[in-house]
Amino acid sequence: MTSTTNKKILRVLAGERIDPPPLWFMRQAGRYLPEYREIRGKAPDFLSFCFDPDLAVEATLQPIRRYETDAAILFSDILVVPYAVGQDVAFKEGEGPVLTPVRDRDAIAALTRGETPDRLAPVMETVRRLRRELPQDVTLIGFAGSPWTVATYMVEGRSSRDFAETKKLAFGEPDTFGSLIDVLVEETSAYLSAQVAAGAEALQLFDSWAGVLSDQAFRDWVIAPTKAIVERLKKNHPAVPIIGFPRGAGASYVSYIEETGVDAVSLDTTVPIDWAARTLQSRVPVQGNLDPILTVAGGDAMLHAADHILDGLKGGPHIFNLGHGFVPETPPEHVAALVAHIRGR
Amino acid sequence: MTSTTNKKILRVLAGERIDPPPLWFMRQAGRYLPEYREIRGKAPDFLSFCFDPDLAVEATLQPIRRYETDAAILFSDILVVPYAVGQDVAFKEGEGPVLTPVRDRDAIAALTRGETPDRLAPVMETVRRLRRELPQDVTLIGFAGSPWTVATYMVEGRSSRDFAETKKLAFGEPDTFGSLIDVLVEETSAYLSAQVAAGAEALQLFDSWAGVLSDQAFRDWVIAPTKAIVERLKKNHPAVPIIGFPRGAGASYVSYIEETGVDAVSLDTTVPIDWAARTLQSRVPVQGNLDPILTVAGGDAMLHAADHILDGLKGGPHIFNLGHGFVPETPPEHVAALVAHIRGR
Repeated sequence: MTSTTNKKILRVLAGERIDPPPLWFMRQAGRYLPEYREIRGKAPDFLSFCFDPDLAVEATLQPIRRYETDAAILFSDILVVPYAVGQDVAFKEGEGPVLTPVRDRDAIAALTRGETPDRLAPVMETVRRLRRELPQDVTLIGFAGSPWTVATYMVEGRSSRDFAETKKLAFGEPDTFGSLIDVLVEETSAYLSAQVAAGAEALQLFDSWAGVLSDQAFRDWVIAPTKAIVERLKKNHPAVPIIGFPRGAGASYVSYIEETGVDAVSLDTTVPIDWAARTLQSRVPVQGNLDPILTVAGGDAMLHAADHILDGLKGGPHIFNLGHGFVPETPPEHVAALVAHIRGR
Repeated sequence: MTSTTNKKILRVLAGERIDPPPLWFMRQAGRYLPEYREIRGKAPDFLSFCFDPDLAVEATLQPIRRYETDAAILFSDILVVPYAVGQDVAFKEGEGPVLTPVRDRDAIAALTRGETPDRLAPVMETVRRLRRELPQDVTLIGFAGSPWTVATYMVEGRSSRDFAETKKLAFGEPDTFGSLIDVLVEETSAYLSAQVAAGAEALQLFDSWAGVLSDQAFRDWVIAPTKAIVERLKKNHPAVPIIGFPRGAGASYVSYIEETGVDAVSLDTTVPIDWAARTLQSRVPVQGNLDPILTVAGGDAMLHAADHILDGLKGGPHIFNLGHGFVPETPPEHVAALVAHIRGR
């Protein structure tokens, strides 16, 4: 396959092999950058920061200026959707997100439906401005959390290790939990569709906690809702590629690709490269998957691991990325060295 | 394959298919049992409990009396090995284990070597007594943590979400980290060998955090040390089967089986049953993999999920188990219903 666009990310997502591959990094904007820490205090809290187009545009552009990555990803958070449906969402320093848990039929029925794009209008304004301001060869990626992952935060009320409350609801009251997933399918589809209307050229669905479910539960709560979102988006925006990121799915990456209809998958750190080349990249373009802690360590360990990924996936369409987001202590100069190494091969 | 032993677990581990399969449960002894909570206070802290043969024997036997599971697993903890090599280890209520971190060459060099079986003599006494007291058709399983997983606790000093300190050491100073892994290979092999000498009839290696590594790191820090331990044990005790549990290994379960030499693998909750039957059970006996949260929910959701596992793995050697240990809020009567359901099929 070939394409006439000069946007390498879009060409790879359309199935083209490019060597060296284009690159971007999950959480490429954010706390590990001193220029981000300088502007972070200009908003009183993290959600206000996300909802201030001046600040969100600036945060999105910072890594593009620094590294000339091939994609920009909208600076936002997956928990803006719970906010948009009326749940209390706060980000506490050093503690992560805190939400008033939604755990029963009444609480789910009380969620606001149909207003997500309006309530997230500042995000759309950010997308519109980014599309105007980005260099013309940089792809603008919009995103949302997948229903399962967003539901874990909505039900637990915070980060979790074992997701016991969410699983108890999903296993014990599947109809109730299903009604929450239905809300999230609807609102997330509308939200992503509005991002495309505002200028997003590709979309990524983050299912960060896909890797804690049995195969049956994975089918019900990861594959089915993702498929429903992909179908809705393809109806309205057939040309916009969707990258799925079912982090930790292991061998279930295969059924995820075969059944959801996503155009590409992002590989988490643990996915073995030879298996990915043979089993996944033969089906769809792949993105990934350097361990972000290697960018903390830097040096030869980082570069050799990057070579292993680049060599193993060079036979097909590949976008270089991390297997998970940067951590705050990542030295930006390690990232610069990584980018130079990949582009210099 | 057939065997003349009346111990079903050993027969399955030797490759025999038994229908319905024998069963035991990870963390089948412990806090979810009222009879355990009654005796827990008889020791001042958790390690003292593990090192009191009267209490450890009683805790091990409790689930056998209640459910007549086909295996007993020694009541102990994977952190007795760091204790035996001289690291400070404490268990704080509601907080989990707390260790004085070991993060540099000097701290690793200061660890005690060659004394683990002696320092853990009370554990050997527990194993000896159990072997005498267990019903003659119940298999006694000994265990240890695998070097990677034990090292994460030794380096982090506590439970972790991202294992950043351990990875930084492993990636940034692989020789230093390798010397810690070498200590753990040596001491863990000696510890397991002593368990066998005391009466353990099968062994399980718990690599609970195997699922956070890239394929290269998995090879270096999961496969290689596991292979070294298996080789040492097979030299001394060729007939004692070893079950490996590389939790979260995903597609890397295959290389783990092919390269470590373990006799069987325990499947975590996320391993898809059809893939396991086709790809793993065709190589070695498998054990698993019900989501423990289903035993909190109970009822049809639990029984249907068990049926899915039983049906999918009935074509080969299978030991029914969980995909991870019981959580404290598990109602014991749900477990009893599960056992009755499996045995009544």
